[in-house]
Amino acid sequence: MYTLYSMRRSGNCYKVRLALAQLDIAYELVEIDILKGETRTPEFLAMNPSGHVPLLEIAPDRHIAESNAILWYVAGHTPLVPDDRVERAEVLQWMFFEQHSLEPSIGAAYFWLTLVKGGRDLQQHALEDWMQEGHRALGVMERHLARRDFFAAGRYTIADIAVYAYTHLAHQCDFDLAPFPAIRAWLRRVADQPGHVTMDQELVLTAAQ
Amino acid sequence: MYTLYSMRRSGNCYKVRLALAQLDIAYELVEIDILKGETRTPEFLAMNPSGHVPLLEIAPDRHIAESNAILWYVAGHTPLVPDDRVERAEVLQWMFFEQHSLEPSIGAAYFWLTLVKGGRDLQQHALEDWMQEGHRALGVMERHLARRDFFAAGRYTIADIAVYAYTHLAHQCDFDLAPFPAIRAWLRRVADQPGHVTMDQELVLTAAQ
Repeated sequence: MYTLYSMRRSGNCYKVRLALAQLDIAYELVEIDILKGETRTPEFLAMNPSGHVPLLEIAPDRHIAESNAILWYVAGHTPLVPDDRVERAEVLQWMFFEQHSLEPSIGAAYFWLTLVKGGRDLQQHALEDWMQEGHRALGVMERHLARRDFFAAGRYTIADIAVYAYTHLAHQCDFDLAPFPAIRAWLRRVADQPGHVTMDQELVLTAAQ
Repeated sequence: MYTLYSMRRSGNCYKVRLALAQLDIAYELVEIDILKGETRTPEFLAMNPSGHVPLLEIAPDRHIAESNAILWYVAGHTPLVPDDRVERAEVLQWMFFEQHSLEPSIGAAYFWLTLVKGGRDLQQHALEDWMQEGHRALGVMERHLARRDFFAAGRYTIADIAVYAYTHLAHQCDFDLAPFPAIRAWLRRVADQPGHVTMDQELVLTAAQ
């Protein structure tokens, strides 16, 4: 069975928990608190030198890091990823977009504005860039979704899971989604998918198992 | 034949040109100048709403964006990517690491400090964060490479190509690689690969064909 090192309030970790829930894959959850330095211990760094969660243990001493690489590993041969070569590249395209253009802005704003006490003051110098970059990414997504129901392959895939994680938290960290109706409609479509679990709900379900 | 929209001095574009050269895949090169706004024209945005190069046209009106998704598309079924499922996930892990932890720091520093006139003054507020994040990423890479010749699968893959692109430019934008001997040895190993072309050499070869 997989072991997933995960933090409750991390969008990157939620991606993996959501995919595993929808794929009905059992796993052991190890809750990690970044804010207490639990990803900076020698033991954790031995498993993942990057010092990040999520981290998936697939066998003793065998780990996969980076949320979207984990998504690809657990879902790459399931209905959450298309078989077609071009469509697979499109799925990856939006997953790389997410890690490059969305997570470093909305993800950073979410972390510092909602999880870290005093984070807004600490990151005042960076906030304007995050807002600008985040809005630019949302604009790209809005134009893409204006003519499509999902990001790639014409259906719900791990590209949607990857982009959903921080987009559905954007309103909690100063981003206003009112000017992005296509994104808001897509957020509802993702939340309506069979087996969808919310960031908190999934943890309750896991704990109850 | 593929058409590649690419900018000469972009590390992200160099990745794709390097992989295509090593795979001996012919393509038409369209040189794009970001600094002249050529990725912000309606025509370009119709091909890639993100407004980024590289962009690969694989068929009329069918494009793949994001450098690492392009790498996966062109090389995913070649010796530059392993067949094993876990090793493929490890390749992707380092490609996501590159886009999340390396490109936004070293790539941004390279762009603003070497390509944009007056860029250092314009980005003074961000420079310290880029240096800190870039050094953190280099530290992770150094620890990983201290015990390995290549990033994933025990051999040269597109993970190395992805990470090489900006790492080999780091010394041009304030980063000192002296404290990173394992990275410097790996840079030499990558440059020694059969069919390796430098960022400039490859363009000369293409133009001469």
